[in-house]
This record gives sequence, C-alpha cells and structure tokens, in this order.
Amino acid sequence: KGGEVITTQGMIKEGVVVVEDGLISFVGKHTKERGEVIDAKGCAVLPGLINAHTHISMTLFRGFAENLGYNQWIEKIQQAEKKLTPNDIKAGAYLGVLEMIKTGTTCFADMYIHMDEVAQVVEKTGMRAALGYGIIESEDIEAKLKHRAEFVKRWNNKAEGRITAMYAPHSAITCSKELLIKLKELSHRDHARIHIHVLETKEERHLMKTKYNMSTISLLNSINFLDSDVLLAHCTCVSNNDMNILKDTKVNVVHCPTSNMVLGTGRAPVVEMMKKGINVAIGTDSVASGWNLNMWKEMCNASLLHPKLLLDVLEMATVNAAKALNINAGELKTGKLADIILVDLKKPYFLSHNLSSALVHGAYDVKTTIVGGKVLMQDYEVKVIDEEKVVKDAKESMLNINSNH
Amino acid sequence: KGGEVITTQGMIKEGVVVVEDGLISFVGKHTKERGEVIDAKGCAVLPGLINAHTHISMTLFRGFAENLGYNQWIEKIQQAEKKLTPNDIKAGAYLGVLEMIKTGTTCFADMYIHMDEVAQVVEKTGMRAALGYGIIESEDIEAKLKHRAEFVKRWNNKAEGRITAMYAPHSAITCSKELLIKLKELSHRDHARIHIHVLETKEERHLMKTKYNMSTISLLNSINFLDSDVLLAHCTCVSNNDMNILKDTKVNVVHCPTSNMVLGTGRAPVVEMMKKGINVAIGTDSVASGWNLNMWKEMCNASLLHPKLLLDVLEMATVNAAKALNINAGELKTGKLADIILVDLKKPYFLSHNLSSALVHGAYDVKTTIVGGKVLMQDYEVKVIDEEKVVKDAKESMLNINSNH
Repeated sequence: KGGEVITTQGMIKEGVVVVEDGLISFVGKHTKERGEVIDAKGCAVLPGLINAHTHISMTLFRGFAENLGYNQWIEKIQQAEKKLTPNDIKAGAYLGVLEMIKTGTTCFADMYIHMDEVAQVVEKTGMRAALGYGIIESEDIEAKLKHRAEFVKRWNNKAEGRITAMYAPHSAITCSKELLIKLKELSHRDHARIHIHVLETKEERHLMKTKYNMSTISLLNSINFLDSDVLLAHCTCVSNNDMNILKDTKVNVVHCPTSNMVLGTGRAPVVEMMKKGINVAIGTDSVASGWNLNMWKEMCNASLLHPKLLLDVLEMATVNAAKALNINAGELKTGKLADIILVDLKKPYFLSHNLSSALVHGAYDVKTTIVGGKVLMQDYEVKVIDEEKVVKDAKESMLNINSNH
Repeated sequence: KGGEVITTQGMIKEGVVVVEDGLISFVGKHTKERGEVIDAKGCAVLPGLINAHTHISMTLFRGFAENLGYNQWIEKIQQAEKKLTPNDIKAGAYLGVLEMIKTGTTCFADMYIHMDEVAQVVEKTGMRAALGYGIIESEDIEAKLKHRAEFVKRWNNKAEGRITAMYAPHSAITCSKELLIKLKELSHRDHARIHIHVLETKEERHLMKTKYNMSTISLLNSINFLDSDVLLAHCTCVSNNDMNILKDTKVNVVHCPTSNMVLGTGRAPVVEMMKKGINVAIGTDSVASGWNLNMWKEMCNASLLHPKLLLDVLEMATVNAAKALNINAGELKTGKLADIILVDLKKPYFLSHNLSSALVHGAYDVKTTIVGGKVLMQDYEVKVIDEEKVVKDAKESMLNINSNH
C-alpha cells in the first residue's frame, strides 16, 4: 500500500495492490483495507523479474574461468563440472536463490545436472521455477530418457504449482536429430515444455551447415520441434529466414546479453526479432560467464547493447518472460499470480524525469520480494534462507571445485 | 583494520591501512594500533574510484532526453540548459556528490557552467575534484577568457588541495584554433590543466576534415596542445596515426563506455590504445546519457564492451585516472592520499574464485567513503550532506527544467 505501482498501463502513484490466496485481486488507488498490510511508501512496486535462462548452481563457478573465448571457457568449465556432487548442486542453488531473492527475481528457467537438488531448493525456499534436467547424446540414452521422464513426472506442476519441469536437450549439436524427435514426443506426452540452447555461437551455424546443410532453426522446424511451448536460449546468429520461422512457429527466444558479450559469441538481432513480433525474454545465463544473476543488470546490459530497447527491457523481463514460461505472472493485474517486488526509491539515482528508465538503469537490489503472495524477503531480511549456512556451504563446494582430486 | 586490502601488488587478507594527516602511512598485515579504528572485517578495502569525465550537475537531466541519437539528444539538452540558474547547478552538484559518495567515487573531473557553485559543493562536502568551466567560441570571448582565468585563480589548489581548476574548451568544433591556442597559453601561465571533448562523434571527424583537412588530434598536435597535462574525453573514432600522436605526447584519454553505447557514438579502440601505452581512464559522462554516476557500473560496462579489459578496468578507474588528473591517489600505498572505500562483502554475489572481478561486476554501493583521511560516509551513513534537503532541492530544480517558462 502506498507505493508507486508500475503496471503495463502506466504508473499508479501511491497505489494499492491487494493479494488474496496467492493471486492479485485488486490494483488501483483506493480499496478497503483488510488483512496484513505492507507499507510501500517511497517504494516502486513491480511484478517480480523473471530470469528466462540460467544454470543456477553454476554460482559455484563465479570468477573461475575468465578472459576466455567460448571454446576454452566451456572446456575449463566442463572439466570442473565432473567434480560436482548433488550436494554441490544444492549449495550452488541455495546461493543463487539467495541472490535472486535479494535482487528481485521471483522466477527462473534453469537447465543443469542433479536437478532434483535444485527442485528441492525451489520447493523449500518458496521460489518459482521452470526446471530442465539437461540431456546430451550418449550410449545409455534410453536409460537417460527414462530418468528425465521420471524427473518431469516427479516435479511438473509441483510445490503448489511453483515448479514446472521441462525437457532440456542441451543443443542440436550435442543431441542427435533422433534424440530431439524423441524428446519432443515425450514433451507432448507429458505436457512438459522444452528448453534448449540454439545458435549461441557461429560455430554451431557452421557445424549444422556441414551436418544437415541447414541452420539449427530450419532443422528444428523440419521435425516440428518449434512451437509456443519451447524456449530457445541465445539465438545470437539467426538469419532472416530463421527469424521468419521463429515468428511463424510462435517459439520463444531468450536473449542473454551479458554472457554473449563476455564470451564474444555475438549480438542477437533482438530489435529485429521483436519488430517481427517474436516473443523475446531475457536471461542472465550462468554466473560462470556473467558474474551474477541480477536481472536489473541484465536488463540494463540489454538496453546498452540495443539502445532502442530502453523500456522494452522491463517488459521483456516480466510480460514476455511469463509468456515464454507459460506462467500466469509478469504483470500487476487482477487475476495474476502475486509475484511482486518493492524497490526502495530513497536513493539519489532514482530522482528522474522517467522513473521506469531510472529503475532499469539504477536499481540493483530490492527491499521486499513476494512469490505467490508469500513474503520471501521483507525490508531486506530474507525469511526463507539461513544466509550464513548457505554462504558456508557454498564456500566449501567452491573449494571442492578448486581441489585437485 | 581487518579488511581484504586490494593493492596493485595483490590482496592483503585481514590487512591494515594506517592514515596520518590525510595520507596513507602504512599498508600491510600488522601494525601497532593508535587513534581511531574503522573495523573493516568482512569488507574489501580499495582506493577510491575516480570518475575522469562527467558533468555532475546534469543529474537534473536524468531520464530527460532518452532514446535519441547524439544530435537530437544534444539539441534537447541545450534548449533545457538555458533555463539553469546557479542555484540549479548547486542542487544538481549536491545530488551528484551524494550519489558519488554512496557509490565509492572520491574524485571526479567535471566540466560545465556556473562552476563556482560546483566548487563550493566540493569544498563543503569534502570531495576531491578537478573542475573546468566550459568555454565555447562566442563574440564576447575576451570577457569569457578573463572570467575563466579568474575561476582558475580562485579555485586551483584550493579546499586543502582537494580542488584543482582546469581550462575546459568544449571541443575543437565549438572552439576555434585561435581560442585553443590562447587557452593553452593560459594553462601554461596558470599551471592549470586542460579538459576537452575529442572525437566523441564521427561527425566531428568529418567536420575537422572539411575545415582543417586533418583529424582533431593532428590539429591539436600541430598547435602543441597535447601533453600529459591534458585530458581528452571520448576519442571514439581515432585512427592509428591519431593513436601514435596520443602515445608520443603522453596525453590522457578518458573512455566513457555507457554514454558512447547509449548515444551510439561508437566504440573507442581502448584495448589498442592501452597496448600502445596510452594512459586511459574511465568516466561516466553525465547522467543525461548514462542515468547514473556509478563508477562500478562504468567499469563493468567498459569490461563488457572490451572483454579483454576485465581487471584492467579497476586500474583504469584508480591508477590511470589519478595519473590523468595528476593527483597523488589511486593506490593504497604509503605516501598516497588517503582516498579509501570499503565494500561490504557479505553479499551472495561476492563469493567468487576471483574477488577483484566479482567486485568489478558485483559491487554497486559502498559502506564507507574516505577522502583525504576524512570520513564522508561510514556504515552507509553520509556525514557531510543533509540528504533530505538535497533531494528536495534537486526535485525543485528538475521541475524548473520541465516547466514552460
């Protein structure tokens, strides 16, 4: 109550957002007060930010592989990943969720290994997430497919609906066409969505040309893989023809500007894609290539890389992302999930002729984070995580990565 | 005492920095304790950041002219600037100093109008600054030159040496060759340095070619304008020949990545310049093109625009900047000015295999800011500014800009 409420229709000064049973039941100027009240005076009230592509447990790799191009970088990371235990994944997920809660992310789309650990962390902390257990081609692929299907069954629409489980083929280079077809069938069978890396690098473009004589996107289209239930991360080097397919199939794209800049993998034609009407969300990718999971920084970096996007980035990180993940959130509007954040405006850099752009370029941490009506952090105090324990456990796991065993 | 002390020789764990008479008298592991002690446990201790090119009072223009290219942008700004009173400049300067203290900037190089107001704010708040009163060609140029010389005399090496005054020709497009020669003479006479915009835009390159048949840098070189006492802001489109001149003359360059990205004015060849041995510092430029005066963001943006610079950016914003401004600071080292900042490391995003890069990419605000041994902010509490009054005054001035009078 009493904050500057940012809606897709504009700002409501000293507005009110009412939450009932985890949903927003009213957004406006005045309403009869009942139940618990959170004083939002001097704060901006926004929909929670949605990180549409990350690998959360890679918080353990922050600062681990720096100043490298994509190929050397991924080699160093993959060597170290072999050491990760389920316990490490849990420690990394807790560290990541802690950062997300503090910086106003209320939902994330993840893809990694030992994903049951991540799911348990999401379940326990009250976060919202779309979780995919990564899969690449291997000899024991039938056993793996069975395992992934079990993961989907175990977690899809669980934790009061906060968790959705996805199939997560790593990419069209590391998965065969046959495997991709099989995964698409499973996704239909299990009503589960798909999350995949597409055209992160120019090298992928060359490899696909050599192997299939077509681009990744044409290949995926040829096997009817692309539709509105699919999330394509990166798409840095898409052709005009690719973009037409993306548009026609209503598939979702996730732009990861920081990671693309840091790894030098290219500049996705985001403005062009959005002009065509393609749904583009934003993701931080992992901290191994971007240092943090802060969606404010990611929005800001997207708008620096594409200055024409200035205010679109806030919509990309909320409305577009909710559409991409098929969750009923991303807007402060009656009937939407009560995923809400408060930003304290008492900072000199929020004094602006345009509050929304000052937020995109100036905000960093948030004061209060609410997911599905549950307060995960209030007045900077995280209520659902033992911060000291999380930091201690993550430190131990980081030492484990650095050890020679 | 007790912090992670970041020096150019590496990090000292639980180190000590001793300050006497405004200077650092010891940096190391152990020393006999005397005088006032600031507990730095759990903090990183760094030299204060130096913003080497800004127009601080333009904090009043935050969010005022967005989504515009350079030409439309500057036209809109210049129209509004006509309304600015000395009182507005003071209000804007206070708002900017407040932001700088909170984000760890201890010194800035400024160039604008009504600069006596800015100087008074610097004097009163305890900040350090190199201040230039902007000058462009005009009919009453003799009166203006006299006025600028008086400004230099009034403020150079004043406020216990915290203020240096500079001559500040706006650019080689808006100042004639004769005016530039005259200003160089005055700078020699008054032992004052020079701050000028150079090659911010490709348009400047074309104009100079037409007018002088040479680049800005060749012109400045031909009149012996360039030496180590000169600060060139931007240099986005310098040729190889230009870079050789920059190197030979030992002139200083200030890179402004955010502003250059936002206004689409180009990508300065920073890596190439630094390889040649040119001294390059970093500046935020004004918030009219970059939204904030936060040097952490600026370092981060520099390293995103030039991934090879990762850790150099910290040196650029401290060591290189101190050299560029000819101040005895920029390093935690015996004999240097005690311009020191503390960053609280108790944030999940500082857990890293490399603390320095985690700071560059993760830090945003600082806990304690010290200039010349004087504590301007301790434990997030600003001691030298009445925050409420500053915000109130700035709001009034911002309304003034938006009015139709």
